[in-house]
Amino acid sequence: MARQERAIRTRRSIVEAAASVFDERGYEAATIGEILTRSGVTKGALYFHFPSKQALAEGVLHEQLAVLSLPPRVCKLQEMVDVGLLTAYRMRRDAVVSAAAKLSLEHGLRAQFGTHLVTAWVDTSEKLLREAQDQGELLPGVDAAESAWLLSAAWTGVQMHSHILVERRDLEERIAALFRHLLPAVAVPAVLGRLVITAERAAQLGAENEEYVVRQARDGAGEEPVTAG
Amino acid sequence: MARQERAIRTRRSIVEAAASVFDERGYEAATIGEILTRSGVTKGALYFHFPSKQALAEGVLHEQLAVLSLPPRVCKLQEMVDVGLLTAYRMRRDAVVSAAAKLSLEHGLRAQFGTHLVTAWVDTSEKLLREAQDQGELLPGVDAAESAWLLSAAWTGVQMHSHILVERRDLEERIAALFRHLLPAVAVPAVLGRLVITAERAAQLGAENEEYVVRQARDGAGEEPVTAG
Repeated sequence: MARQERAIRTRRSIVEAAASVFDERGYEAATIGEILTRSGVTKGALYFHFPSKQALAEGVLHEQLAVLSLPPRVCKLQEMVDVGLLTAYRMRRDAVVSAAAKLSLEHGLRAQFGTHLVTAWVDTSEKLLREAQDQGELLPGVDAAESAWLLSAAWTGVQMHSHILVERRDLEERIAALFRHLLPAVAVPAVLGRLVITAERAAQLGAENEEYVVRQARDGAGEEPVTAG
Repeated sequence: MARQERAIRTRRSIVEAAASVFDERGYEAATIGEILTRSGVTKGALYFHFPSKQALAEGVLHEQLAVLSLPPRVCKLQEMVDVGLLTAYRMRRDAVVSAAAKLSLEHGLRAQFGTHLVTAWVDTSEKLLREAQDQGELLPGVDAAESAWLLSAAWTGVQMHSHILVERRDLEERIAALFRHLLPAVAVPAVLGRLVITAERAAQLGAENEEYVVRQARDGAGEEPVTAG
């Protein structure tokens, strides 16, 4: 058990080192040598977990989805907002989240990594919107698949513009404004009025997320839904 | 006058050749040699207009804004929708529009070209939204600057996702859906109900745009607003 825990920790150190190098230098310019130095693990350990630079990048993409979890909410639209705000918060503070976005969006890398993370985000949003729909949270006539696609795409665009214009300094503010703009076309008024969509919430979600990820790692996968929404 | 016209045509051939090479190969891999071959102009003419690869890229960025013009509309929200739909339509069909988007959004190029086109689009949207606001088209409490920023950013994200997932085949459909999602938070109901936001309109705008650009080039800059909206 201790050995397994050590392996998990080693793997995580490598993924974090890889993410920080990809994030700073870009995928093409990144070298396994620099990732090795930064991770502080042995060459053998690195190649045991990740046999190539491509495998390291895939590890970063996979890890992004794992680190952005929150306890489920009763209100599914609030859960969708919360995941969006949390991702904004962590993208400014966590190389794994930031590097994964770059790996997914850079033109030259799409053939290698392109659609995986993008479709994962669309699917996550669609699942939450369908649950929201089943609970009567959505306006009649809303097409959950179309709205999920648009929310994910618009989120990406806001992230890119915030990155290009101000190095993401206003990202949480802009993502909150995006949800405030998009949700009147999606949510029934009674739900819309109860949603909490502020940049301040993003920081609270960051703390909740850290605690939740630690708790999940400790308790295993048998976590029961917590009704925070 | 004939000489001036020839110079304009030569310049345009070069910009179009540069755009098609940037669009296919990316900025870094593009060579002036290939642009020269594709443009069919002399080396002297090319260097007269554009002394460097960077100048060629700036020419492409500048040209994008010039080719996407439409006659002004009475309804300014319709004008904003139309510019968005037209840009989607032309991005699928015109290397200048597509290459300019890539030059603006690729991570490695931002230091060189980054914010120019992005801020130009935000400014264009903001100008239209302010005019819409002055005409009473916007809901009370709408912040024109914030909404313009979001519309531009969301447009970019939709373009990127459509590009990544389906090579932009659904771009006009997705941009129309984006406006249908965002505008209920922005437009007063009476205006919202009158807006035409469909992918079919994009093709009509493409034809109108071509005719308008030709007419403007012929008549010079003294064009009076046409009230088509």
